[in-house]
Amino acid sequence: MRVDIDRLSRELETLAGFSDAPAPAVTRVVYSETDRRARAWVRELCCEAGLAVREDGIGNIFARWPGEEPGIATGSHIDAIPHAGRYDGTVGVLGGLEAIRMLQRAGVRPRRSIELVVFCAEEPTRFGIGCFGSRMLVGLLDGSELRDREGKSLRDWVGNHGSVRLPKGHYAAFIELHIEQGPLLERSGIPLGIVTAIAAPATWHIFIEGEGGHAGAVLMPDRKDAFCAAAEAALAVERAARSSGAIDTVGTTGVCDVFPGAVNSVPSRVRIEMDVRDIDGARRDRVLGEIEAACAEIAARRGVTIRKQVIHADPPATCDARVIAALEKAAGGMPYQKMVSRAYHDSLFMARIVPAGMLFIPCRGGVSHRPDEYAAPEAIASGVAALAGALASLAND
Amino acid sequence: MRVDIDRLSRELETLAGFSDAPAPAVTRVVYSETDRRARAWVRELCCEAGLAVREDGIGNIFARWPGEEPGIATGSHIDAIPHAGRYDGTVGVLGGLEAIRMLQRAGVRPRRSIELVVFCAEEPTRFGIGCFGSRMLVGLLDGSELRDREGKSLRDWVGNHGSVRLPKGHYAAFIELHIEQGPLLERSGIPLGIVTAIAAPATWHIFIEGEGGHAGAVLMPDRKDAFCAAAEAALAVERAARSSGAIDTVGTTGVCDVFPGAVNSVPSRVRIEMDVRDIDGARRDRVLGEIEAACAEIAARRGVTIRKQVIHADPPATCDARVIAALEKAAGGMPYQKMVSRAYHDSLFMARIVPAGMLFIPCRGGVSHRPDEYAAPEAIASGVAALAGALASLAND
Repeated sequence: MRVDIDRLSRELETLAGFSDAPAPAVTRVVYSETDRRARAWVRELCCEAGLAVREDGIGNIFARWPGEEPGIATGSHIDAIPHAGRYDGTVGVLGGLEAIRMLQRAGVRPRRSIELVVFCAEEPTRFGIGCFGSRMLVGLLDGSELRDREGKSLRDWVGNHGSVRLPKGHYAAFIELHIEQGPLLERSGIPLGIVTAIAAPATWHIFIEGEGGHAGAVLMPDRKDAFCAAAEAALAVERAARSSGAIDTVGTTGVCDVFPGAVNSVPSRVRIEMDVRDIDGARRDRVLGEIEAACAEIAARRGVTIRKQVIHADPPATCDARVIAALEKAAGGMPYQKMVSRAYHDSLFMARIVPAGMLFIPCRGGVSHRPDEYAAPEAIASGVAALAGALASLAND
Repeated sequence: MRVDIDRLSRELETLAGFSDAPAPAVTRVVYSETDRRARAWVRELCCEAGLAVREDGIGNIFARWPGEEPGIATGSHIDAIPHAGRYDGTVGVLGGLEAIRMLQRAGVRPRRSIELVVFCAEEPTRFGIGCFGSRMLVGLLDGSELRDREGKSLRDWVGNHGSVRLPKGHYAAFIELHIEQGPLLERSGIPLGIVTAIAAPATWHIFIEGEGGHAGAVLMPDRKDAFCAAAEAALAVERAARSSGAIDTVGTTGVCDVFPGAVNSVPSRVRIEMDVRDIDGARRDRVLGEIEAACAEIAARRGVTIRKQVIHADPPATCDARVIAALEKAAGGMPYQKMVSRAYHDSLFMARIVPAGMLFIPCRGGVSHRPDEYAAPEAIASGVAALAGALASLAND
C-alpha cells in the first residue's frame, strides 16, 4: 500500500492555482467564482475515483465509497483566507481522497462506507464566523443570521438551501488530516501528531463610537477619538492573552475598519474583530472578562461607547479515544506525538455528532495563513498513509 | 449693497446634492464623476454671472471679472472628504461668487480684476496630500509624484496637464472666506474671524512590517504583530500632541489599513496615516521628533520594522498686513476677532506668491468634516458682505 505522492503533489499545485491572489499567495473565499471553480474541480476528481458525489444546499461536498453500514468520514476544507498558503485544509481534502484511492488500489473492501467531506467554509472571511459549514451540519447554526460585509445573506449567495443538518450517528467516526499550523512537530522532528483536544475559540466584533471632526481644528482635550480607543482595546487583547499564565492562550486583533478613514479627519467609528483561544475554556473566559473590563475602562475614560458582539464562543472538544487508538495503531512504526490543536477546525464541531479525531503533520516553521506555508511531500505522504490505515481499520473493525 | 442669501443658500444646497454619500453626508472626491459634474455646474454659474472662465490642466477653475490691472483673487475648494458636510470650502467658492455678483449689482467698476479661484482639490483623499491644486499653482509640486490608492497617477486622471504654475505677482492679493472649523467664534458670539496665521501641517505615512501567521497557532511570545505595533504608534501620536505644552498642537491618526485583515490571522503589515499641526513650526517639529523616537522604540521592542514617508511638512504662513487691514475696514460695524487657523487651507500655499488673508465665519459647535457641519445663513451673509467690501477696496485702492 503506497501513497501516490507525485499525483497528490500535482493535485495540491493545481488546486493552489484556483486563487484570487498572485502565486504563491492563495485567496479563495467561499462562494467566489474562484471557490466555485475549485470545488467543481474537486468534485470531478472524486467522480474520477468512482465515488458517489453529492453537494448539500450550502456547498458542503460528500464523496462516498459505499459500504454496507454507516460510514467513516474524513475531510477538511479548501477555502483560504486572503493571501494564505496552499496546504491549510487542502491536505485533508486531497490527502483524504488519496487515502481512499490508496485503499482502493490495495483492494480493500470497506464494510462501512468511507466518505470524504469537503466543508464549504472553514475560514471566517465571508461571514465573520469560522466553520459555518460544519456548524450548520451539526445544527449549531441555521444560517439565517449570516451576513457578509456587503450585507449579503447566505440565502443571497446560495438560494433557498433548506436544512443541511446531519443526524447524530450519521457517521461512525470522523478523522481530519491537517497541517499542524504550529512549530512543535517540526522542532521535535516527529512526523505525526495525534490530537487529543481542540482549543476553544471565541470571536468578538467590537464597535467603538466616538466623535469625529476636523483633524486640524478639534483640540486634543475635546477629542473622543475612536481609533485611539480601538488601539487601546487591541493592546488590552494582547496584554490579557499574554498574562493568562499559560502558553496556550492566544489573543489577536486581525481586523480594524476606521470610519471615515481620512488622514485629516478624527476617526468617529471603528470596528475591530478579535479572537481569543485556549484549550482551557474557563481560562479563556477569564481572559475575555479582562478584555471586557479593559474596554469598559477605556470607554469611561475617553467618553466613547464600546459595544461587543459575540460572534461565537465555543467550548473546546476532546477527541474520541477509539479514534485516537486507531490512529496510534495506524502510525505503525512512525513516531507520533499526542498534542492539542490550538487552531480550531471543522472537527471541533463534527465532534458533537460523531466520535472524532485529528491527525497533524509538520509544516515548515509552524507557518500558516501565509503564502510561505509549506508541508514537505514526505510529511504529507506519512500523514496520508496513517490516515488510510486508520480509515481501513475503523471501516472494517 | 445686499447679499442675496436666499439664492446663495439655494446654491449651497444644490452643490451639496452632488455627492457620493446619502444626504446629509457629502462625499465629493476630486476627479470622481460627481466632482466633475459639480465643477461643471460651478463653471456654469460663473458664466451666468458674466465672468470669463478658464480651467487649467489639472482642474483649477478661474472666473474673472476683468479690470485694467492684475487682479484681486478670492476662492476656496468644493471637494469633500468621505462623509463630510456641505460648508467646508463651498462657502468660499459660492460665497466668493456671490460677493462678486453683489459688487456687480451695486455698480462697482473694479480697476483691478476680481477673480474667483476654485482650487481643484484641497482635501487629501485621492492622493494623500492636501491642497495639491494650490501647491501646483505656486510651484511646490509638479504632480508627477502623485499616486492614488489604486496606483493611478495625476496624468492617468487628467492627461498631459503641462505646467499650471502662476508667477509671483500674478495677483495683487488673495482672500479666502471659510467656516472656522473650530468653536471659538461661536463660543464668543463674534460673527467674523480675521486670520493672522495658518497652522503648519505635517503628514506622514507610517509602514509597519511584522510577521503574520495563524491567530490560533502562533504563540504570544513568538509574535511580531504589526497591528499591535501600529496601535502603540497611534497612541504615541496622541500622547506627543497632548504633551507639547500648547493647546494649538494637534495630532491625529485617521487611516489604518491592516494586512491581511482577517480575524484569524496575525497582522503582518499595517499602514497608518498621521497628521500633526501647529501654528509654531518648531514646536510641531519637536512633536514629530517624539513620535519618531517612539516608533523606533516600538520597532526595537517588538522586532518589527517601522518606516515613515514624509508626505509633506509645510511651514506655517503669516497673513498679509494690508489684506488684514482691508478685512478689518470691510467688517464695518461688525465685531471681529483676530485669530489663527488651525486647519490648513489653499491660502497657506497662495501666501507664497501673493499677499494673502483669510476670513472666518462661525460654524455650529466648531464641527467640520462631518455630515452635521452647519453654518447659519446669517453667518454666511456677514462673511460674504465683509469679503465683498474687502475685495472692492483692494481692487480700487
